[in-house]
Amino acid sequence: MSTDLPVPETRVLAVASHVVSGYVGNKIAVFTMQSLGCDVAALNTVQFSNHTGYRQVKGTKVSAQEITDLYDGLKQSYLDDFDMMLSGYIPGAEAVQAVGRIAAELKEKASARNAPGSFFWVLDPVMGDNGKLYVAQDVVPAYKSLLPHADLILPNQFEAELLSDVKITDMASLTRAIEVIHDTYRVPHIVLTSVSVDTATPSSTPPPLNSSTSHKDSDAKTPATLSVIGSTMTSHRRPRAFKIRFPAIDAYFSGTGDMFGALMVVRMREAVTSAAKSLGETESWLSPDDVDAIDLPLAKAAEKVLASMHEVLDATCSSMQVEVEKIETQFGGSKDDTRMHLARSKAAELKLVRHLGSLRDPNVEFKAQRM
Amino acid sequence: MSTDLPVPETRVLAVASHVVSGYVGNKIAVFTMQSLGCDVAALNTVQFSNHTGYRQVKGTKVSAQEITDLYDGLKQSYLDDFDMMLSGYIPGAEAVQAVGRIAAELKEKASARNAPGSFFWVLDPVMGDNGKLYVAQDVVPAYKSLLPHADLILPNQFEAELLSDVKITDMASLTRAIEVIHDTYRVPHIVLTSVSVDTATPSSTPPPLNSSTSHKDSDAKTPATLSVIGSTMTSHRRPRAFKIRFPAIDAYFSGTGDMFGALMVVRMREAVTSAAKSLGETESWLSPDDVDAIDLPLAKAAEKVLASMHEVLDATCSSMQVEVEKIETQFGGSKDDTRMHLARSKAAELKLVRHLGSLRDPNVEFKAQRM
Repeated sequence: MSTDLPVPETRVLAVASHVVSGYVGNKIAVFTMQSLGCDVAALNTVQFSNHTGYRQVKGTKVSAQEITDLYDGLKQSYLDDFDMMLSGYIPGAEAVQAVGRIAAELKEKASARNAPGSFFWVLDPVMGDNGKLYVAQDVVPAYKSLLPHADLILPNQFEAELLSDVKITDMASLTRAIEVIHDTYRVPHIVLTSVSVDTATPSSTPPPLNSSTSHKDSDAKTPATLSVIGSTMTSHRRPRAFKIRFPAIDAYFSGTGDMFGALMVVRMREAVTSAAKSLGETESWLSPDDVDAIDLPLAKAAEKVLASMHEVLDATCSSMQVEVEKIETQFGGSKDDTRMHLARSKAAELKLVRHLGSLRDPNVEFKAQRM
Repeated sequence: MSTDLPVPETRVLAVASHVVSGYVGNKIAVFTMQSLGCDVAALNTVQFSNHTGYRQVKGTKVSAQEITDLYDGLKQSYLDDFDMMLSGYIPGAEAVQAVGRIAAELKEKASARNAPGSFFWVLDPVMGDNGKLYVAQDVVPAYKSLLPHADLILPNQFEAELLSDVKITDMASLTRAIEVIHDTYRVPHIVLTSVSVDTATPSSTPPPLNSSTSHKDSDAKTPATLSVIGSTMTSHRRPRAFKIRFPAIDAYFSGTGDMFGALMVVRMREAVTSAAKSLGETESWLSPDDVDAIDLPLAKAAEKVLASMHEVLDATCSSMQVEVEKIETQFGGSKDDTRMHLARSKAAELKLVRHLGSLRDPNVEFKAQRM
């Protein structure tokens, strides 16, 4: 494992859920960013015993007022000097608005001191998956109202549909959704973290997808290949899109979306730092129009992120299979479905802490392709 | 940095405070244990914007009931399979009792399945420092009542006085305090994390001490050398004491006690794993009577812990000096003492995330000596 850190000193505000046991939300995002050298301020939006995929959970949510208070606490002690912000699951529309106000204020501060590019917000608009909303209805317009402040958003396909009001069924509608997000909502960068339309042969029937967002359990079958689609808009707010196809793993894991977001924070910062110096000083780190889609910092970042994800998921899969066999021997005969489900959920927790090498120096196998 | 992890798969329950920004309590303990390969369940007892050394803070405490609920949440999903537990700051006597019940239950479970040594509790009885209590008076008897369930306690000198009711003024009273903790409270292992009595020349006047516990700010001057004193009791509950002397760093840092506790969890597990196989299966990992004080797993663990601490504090000191100079240029003339204090507090946050090598492979310079 290399001792070189990928990013210069970077102070990140991470706003997401906290679980005592397991790896979703801030519990996985904070460690991921810290182990890559970021100084992370972790504002936890809930404290739950475990993630909701277990189908039973205890704990409490943090109110919108408490989120605002904690941020005021940071401000009064001059601890709000953030370079980046990552936001994940936020419980309810009011809390979403509270987090949006924090991001907007940090953005304004950067602009007031005439330092565009000195603050960058990565927003994962956690709302649902596979056509099912798992937050209250009023969270959707709340997120829409925040989009103009975001630099990079990380919706899954369903969330991209909700934000763009475009039903994604083929490559044309996928492109249309990206256009709306760039043009109507002025979001400079977007990565769709799970796309079920076949990006290899447009207009074919969409296979069912593997989710990569947390806070959700799924029994969907997995296609052999998945795609991540990314785009950085041009100065005319037109898409510059790329896709990265990678082999799917036939298992459902919670927390992958949160790990994806945390890695994107680090790798985006890394890619921008190693690009032309001026890029980091440009608002929203928008590459000049002559930069091709597959040469975008966003594409370079996404390649590394997927490489790390693939290695960690592989490691999780291997240890999970061993665990599940043990569990089946122990409980398989008893027909106690709940007990089996709980044991499987625990076995599927991402195996991160013992695979730091996969975070730091992943082997990049899957490359971005022009769309 | 080595990719070898010091411990086999180890599941730890960490109960302590959480701060959004900075490094005390679980914010430093969880990352420390995770980056050394532990699967950590983090039960946060507060969520504050920052540590109290800043002299202003926003956030909320978690009630005793919420702590119990979160643990019940773990139990109902069979997530209470912990190998070790680390407890730090707990707000109030009721919450201390709630945490004590969790530890006692985990201990009983290990004993019920006839697996002594399969659960080990490291208790940092956070109560005060430098002769000053910074918790409510009724927290002291609450901690006393928990001691019989603890395997290793990590009091500073003042906390050891409170627990043993022995005023520590010289080597004789120090030894007496350790005797009381082993014999009256049946605590198998103790490490006094900051000792001001001169362990080199007994009965000299105690120099003022540098605290190594968190949640406290101090202007005390630092002696040139500090000691950590440890002891593992014999089968007759007699002390087997060692000391490790190390050069003091002339600055106050918050979170060092929490980092010390987290490192002790890992290094104690490591030392016991590499000792005779049967030791890990012995209740409280009590070494046979013929093991000399300086050969104890506790002594080996403490040596490595101090080595890591020393390297991280050194790194923090260096970067802090640069920071403080900048601050003085910026605010020194304004006589705004509050602004200076806040800036200094931020500059003194432990520099951990960019010094993983110091956690993993520290250079052991300071060795345990027989007392």
